[in-house]
Amino acid sequence: MPLVRISHAAGKSAEAIGALSKGVHQAMMDTFGVPAEDFWQIITEHAPHSGLIGPVSFLGIAHTTDLVFIQITCAEGRTLDQKKALYAAIADKASKAACVRAEDIIINLTETKRENWSFGNGLASFV
Amino acid sequence: MPLVRISHAAGKSAEAIGALSKGVHQAMMDTFGVPAEDFWQIITEHAPHSGLIGPVSFLGIAHTTDLVFIQITCAEGRTLDQKKALYAAIADKASKAACVRAEDIIINLTETKRENWSFGNGLASFV
Amino acid sequence: MPLVRISHAAGKSAEAIGALSKGVHQAMMDTFGVPAEDFWQIITEHAPHSGLIGPVSFLGIAHTTDLVFIQITCAEGRTLDQKKALYAAIADKASKAACVRAEDIIINLTETKRENWSFGNGLASFV
Repeated sequence: MPLVRISHAAGKSAEAIGALSKGVHQAMMDTFGVPAEDFWQIITEHAPHSGLIGPVSFLGIAHTTDLVFIQITCAEGRTLDQKKALYAAIADKASKAACVRAEDIIINLTETKRENWSFGNGLASFV
Repeated sequence: MPLVRISHAAGKSAEAIGALSKGVHQAMMDTFGVPAEDFWQIITEHAPHSGLIGPVSFLGIAHTTDLVFIQITCAEGRTLDQKKALYAAIADKASKAACVRAEDIIINLTETKRENWSFGNGLASFV
Repeated sequence: MPLVRISHAAGKSAEAIGALSKGVHQAMMDTFGVPAEDFWQIITEHAPHSGLIGPVSFLGIAHTTDLVFIQITCAEGRTLDQKKALYAAIADKASKAACVRAEDIIINLTETKRENWSFGNGLASFV
């Protein structure tokens, strides 16, 4: 049920982007219990200075312009522990996969009702 | 009040994209009671293998790489029956308009408060 | 904590886009109490007729095709007065910065829990 928007700085290889995509999905499988085949992403690249904007430092963490934003729309109901585990798993897997510093991986969850999804054929897939 | 993000695979004609846009809006008029002039969309095209990611099959529905993601931010308060009608209407109209299989149309609703919108001039349009 | 997606019509100078970006952030600092260093944006340009869609008029406000959509994901809890002040400040600053009519600046807020954010290193930044 998640729809994941991954926005990364330009200049990465197709292999790195593919590994980033798979790493984020594996993290969701491992921590949120997402089925392997529930794999939906929109991946876009952006100019690092003008398309992706971040600060030099925030909350004591220094940032470069090689940012990756991961905005996940998913069903509501995961626990705080699951969310913490997801962030840690994404930062670990995505940073290794795409050679991005863990400091530069920014994650947001937007939670919606289970009735708010259709995965094909115009059906409400989860009600 | 809806803001609709339509993300489609590259390779479609301008006519098909225009028909897709209008088909989604007509579905919202017919099922959610959206006024004709309340028509706001951001439409982007993506490389089918690297920009839009989906599974071969999910919940018994087979998918191709010619996916269309329709992510709708709208006011809260529609009923489950309205949502079901919306999904069915979008899948029907969008698939005909853009020659996309109904199986490949993925829809998500994100609901917000009515006070969370400004449609010009810096006004809170609905409070 | 906000993540701001700014989607503007193509044809603007780098200077105008930079001023737009800074103007939106200043408005969030002034009205939502966002720290200066909590500055996260994804900025994209779109073809005005096919990529950004809006009506000729809505709620008595006339629109051109030179639209700017500003979709803000932020923590829940701001008051209606703060939201009204934000809309007014964005419309004022962004219209001056980017030479966009205030009528053509469309704003949406999507509010999430504070636990739904990670700003680097895989940490839940606000819990």
